[in-house]
Amino acid sequence: MDAPTIQPKFLPTQNELGVIAVGFSGGQCKAGVDAAPMALIQAGLINQLKDELEYNIHYDGEVHSYSELMPKEDPDYRNMKNPLAVSAVTQTLSKQVYEHAKEGRFVLTLGGDHSIAIGTVSGTAKAIRERLGREMAVIWVDAHADINTPESSESGNIHGMPVAFLTGLAAEKREDIFGWLKDDQKISVKKLVYIGLRDIDRGEKKILRDNGIKAFSMHDIDRHGIGKVMDMALGWIGSDTPIHLSFDVDALDPMWAPSTGTPVRGGLTLREGDFIAECVHETGSLVALDLVEVNPSLESEGASETIRAGCSIIRCALGDTLL
Amino acid sequence: MDAPTIQPKFLPTQNELGVIAVGFSGGQCKAGVDAAPMALIQAGLINQLKDELEYNIHYDGEVHSYSELMPKEDPDYRNMKNPLAVSAVTQTLSKQVYEHAKEGRFVLTLGGDHSIAIGTVSGTAKAIRERLGREMAVIWVDAHADINTPESSESGNIHGMPVAFLTGLAAEKREDIFGWLKDDQKISVKKLVYIGLRDIDRGEKKILRDNGIKAFSMHDIDRHGIGKVMDMALGWIGSDTPIHLSFDVDALDPMWAPSTGTPVRGGLTLREGDFIAECVHETGSLVALDLVEVNPSLESEGASETIRAGCSIIRCALGDTLL
Amino acid sequence: MDAPTIQPKFLPTQNELGVIAVGFSGGQCKAGVDAAPMALIQAGLINQLKDELEYNIHYDGEVHSYSELMPKEDPDYRNMKNPLAVSAVTQTLSKQVYEHAKEGRFVLTLGGDHSIAIGTVSGTAKAIRERLGREMAVIWVDAHADINTPESSESGNIHGMPVAFLTGLAAEKREDIFGWLKDDQKISVKKLVYIGLRDIDRGEKKILRDNGIKAFSMHDIDRHGIGKVMDMALGWIGSDTPIHLSFDVDALDPMWAPSTGTPVRGGLTLREGDFIAECVHETGSLVALDLVEVNPSLESEGASETIRAGCSIIRCALGDTLL
Ligand SMILES: [Mn+2]
Ligand SMILES: [Mn+2]
Ligand SMILES: [Mn+2]
Ligand SMILES: [Mn+2]
Ligand SMILES: [Mn+2]
Ligand SMILES: [Mn+2]
Repeated sequence: MDAPTIQPKFLPTQNELGVIAVGFSGGQCKAGVDAAPMALIQAGLINQLKDELEYNIHYDGEVHSYSELMPKEDPDYRNMKNPLAVSAVTQTLSKQVYEHAKEGRFVLTLGGDHSIAIGTVSGTAKAIRERLGREMAVIWVDAHADINTPESSESGNIHGMPVAFLTGLAAEKREDIFGWLKDDQKISVKKLVYIGLRDIDRGEKKILRDNGIKAFSMHDIDRHGIGKVMDMALGWIGSDTPIHLSFDVDALDPMWAPSTGTPVRGGLTLREGDFIAECVHETGSLVALDLVEVNPSLESEGASETIRAGCSIIRCALGDTLL
Repeated sequence: MDAPTIQPKFLPTQNELGVIAVGFSGGQCKAGVDAAPMALIQAGLINQLKDELEYNIHYDGEVHSYSELMPKEDPDYRNMKNPLAVSAVTQTLSKQVYEHAKEGRFVLTLGGDHSIAIGTVSGTAKAIRERLGREMAVIWVDAHADINTPESSESGNIHGMPVAFLTGLAAEKREDIFGWLKDDQKISVKKLVYIGLRDIDRGEKKILRDNGIKAFSMHDIDRHGIGKVMDMALGWIGSDTPIHLSFDVDALDPMWAPSTGTPVRGGLTLREGDFIAECVHETGSLVALDLVEVNPSLESEGASETIRAGCSIIRCALGDTLL
Repeated sequence: MDAPTIQPKFLPTQNELGVIAVGFSGGQCKAGVDAAPMALIQAGLINQLKDELEYNIHYDGEVHSYSELMPKEDPDYRNMKNPLAVSAVTQTLSKQVYEHAKEGRFVLTLGGDHSIAIGTVSGTAKAIRERLGREMAVIWVDAHADINTPESSESGNIHGMPVAFLTGLAAEKREDIFGWLKDDQKISVKKLVYIGLRDIDRGEKKILRDNGIKAFSMHDIDRHGIGKVMDMALGWIGSDTPIHLSFDVDALDPMWAPSTGTPVRGGLTLREGDFIAECVHETGSLVALDLVEVNPSLESEGASETIRAGCSIIRCALGDTLL
């Protein structure tokens, strides 16, 4: 590996990297996804970013479990499970991300389940608005759309709802249940692009259609090839818009990332996953990355492979290149 | 899943579905492929078609073994194995398919080995001629061309010959050995398109060349990508021709469909198989589908995966979509 | 299989095939790659080439271990391991290849580790210059660039250096350490094309850039598809240049070729590997093929699959076709 050569358009320097490790699994029901940040770090991730990609790392050395934020009781609310916990954690995470982002650092967040993106995207969106006076785009790479409202969700798991809250399609006045999420922390549905979708709820299909949201399913990738799909996805966003990339490892086919909470067959090859990350890096517009839903405890055999896949995607998004 | 939104061009209604379960394995030598229809149904296939894709199902609730048709003796004839049995079964199946197709129903046949396509294609070809006064096209998705004549075949297994009989390249006067197959039940070699070929006998290569038959091998799929290949395949057929899709699960790579009689490496990914089925559905021209050569008994580990792949292809051909 | 129909442009006849089996592993540190030629032959390779592709085989029936050439002592020299042994073996192999090539035969060399290409490429380059008065191109299919100089190499294994010596980027005056390699045995960096790269040393990246060497990484294959990449690779070489194809089996993903010394994830599918070989054959310009780095002893389960993959690539390069 070498230090990246792409000049970032929306960061003042090339190599300042904020890292936040989020050991939180309350957005869904399976234990284990909280162990992912430690597993990624133990696989050498941060050292590689420092030594080989030559980043200047800002990391507090801690995997945050936010145990101090956990409520004594957390009854379902509007069909949401653990609403107080997820709200409190993402509110705090939003501030952590914001602190890095307002300094002009690239922000890497290691999840955790995908509910944490409520914190990460809101944090970068606010900082980018303040620093640059502009709206940010989000590329959501996932087998799922995660755009259920509390009412459209069948499971009530909040990791299936972050996009709804971030775009304002879902909202709640209670300050302690995402009411803290203000307009300057949200993103427009017009600046959202999905890649890798293949398991969408009926209600979500309607939401995507009704809001004209840009989405590239696996069918599109098969039809056009991943090269052309990335051209189209990045063309939709345009070259003058900062990008937050939120990468759910279940976008990859279970053949390459089996150890995740809701695996779906027919997914991206690891090559395609890396390629997506490389292309987004090459734009020079990337300002933040989430890597979520690695669950090292779910499949004894597949855990290390899933962790390796996660590390690979992170390195590619941060500028590792083949040639 | 939702009810399909594509309007069929050659069926009077959108959701009338005839289903025929054919538990027949006499077109080849390995036991077990007769168990496929029950395995597909037990995996929930028919319920999904009814509840999720909202088809009105016409199914007699029976897996036909046609034991009453089995001859006492069935000596080889012109190198064919079990000629009387295969002829009798496919003649009866042809009538069953015809009965559904003349009512304007989509006909789904669950095989069974690929010899049964002598029955299915002849049945739809005749009904389409009568209902619409036009010739039908056949898309044959397979690792093999199944176009041997009795004389060119090395094995004598009739599941390697159905296309030869259906196109008239092979013929036999004996009424009890495919002599029942009349012109109005046959298809033109000009209306035949292969996808996925990779294991062709020497004699078959000559037949394909001599008759100018349109064939897309795995080499073509690698060269152009499956998206472009489907454009070319469907362009060859044209938009005003009813299509019968005969899908041999061995078109898929053994990685996704290991439990089949004659697996061949270097095949379609499951994504490509689903994509083919989706594209053919999207034409609105599809009138019948065979899914054959799933053999649940051949590989204990791979059987359930092969069955799932078969169900997936059927759902895609019947209008299931990702978005 | 049938006899190939492509007319070779740079060989006087279509079906004269020289075969050399090189049981040599001294270019790297792991035992076992010397057993590959016997494993390939026992899998039926030579019989298939003779009986099915109808080649007239010139093979001395021997797997050469060159034990008579092994020096008593072989200390590191300029950081190279086993320099005397590798030099002596490749010098002898160069003559063996030359003897076949000057007769106008296609030369197939079964390795062995990739250091042996110092012998094979030099042998064909010299013979082609003499027979046809022209320079030869080399297509190097590999996860690695194998273009380290003794000084840039971290391991000192010569199988990571053959391209450097063959292009003159590395040189040594000592006759017994590749000093025997003369200008008429070398190739130009302008006539070199890489396909499949994904694990390149930092020093190698610089060498590739500084010399303007044409290289298609896995990223390029994902971007354009293998069909377009082959168009570009062969377009770079042009239609009037003889081609030596040096195929390292580790170019394939470990999913298809696990049993090799330095596997790297994210590689070619077997379909893509076969496709490359088919395309190069179709040019009619191919004059020699190396298949190297199959190591049947490294993975008990994956050995037979790796051997099968190797045989498949060889058959495709020698004219086996799907249709
Ligand atoms: Mn997901
Ligand atoms: Mn997600
Ligand atoms: Mn078949
Ligand atoms: Mn078949
Ligand atoms: Mn290599
Ligand atoms: Mn090599």
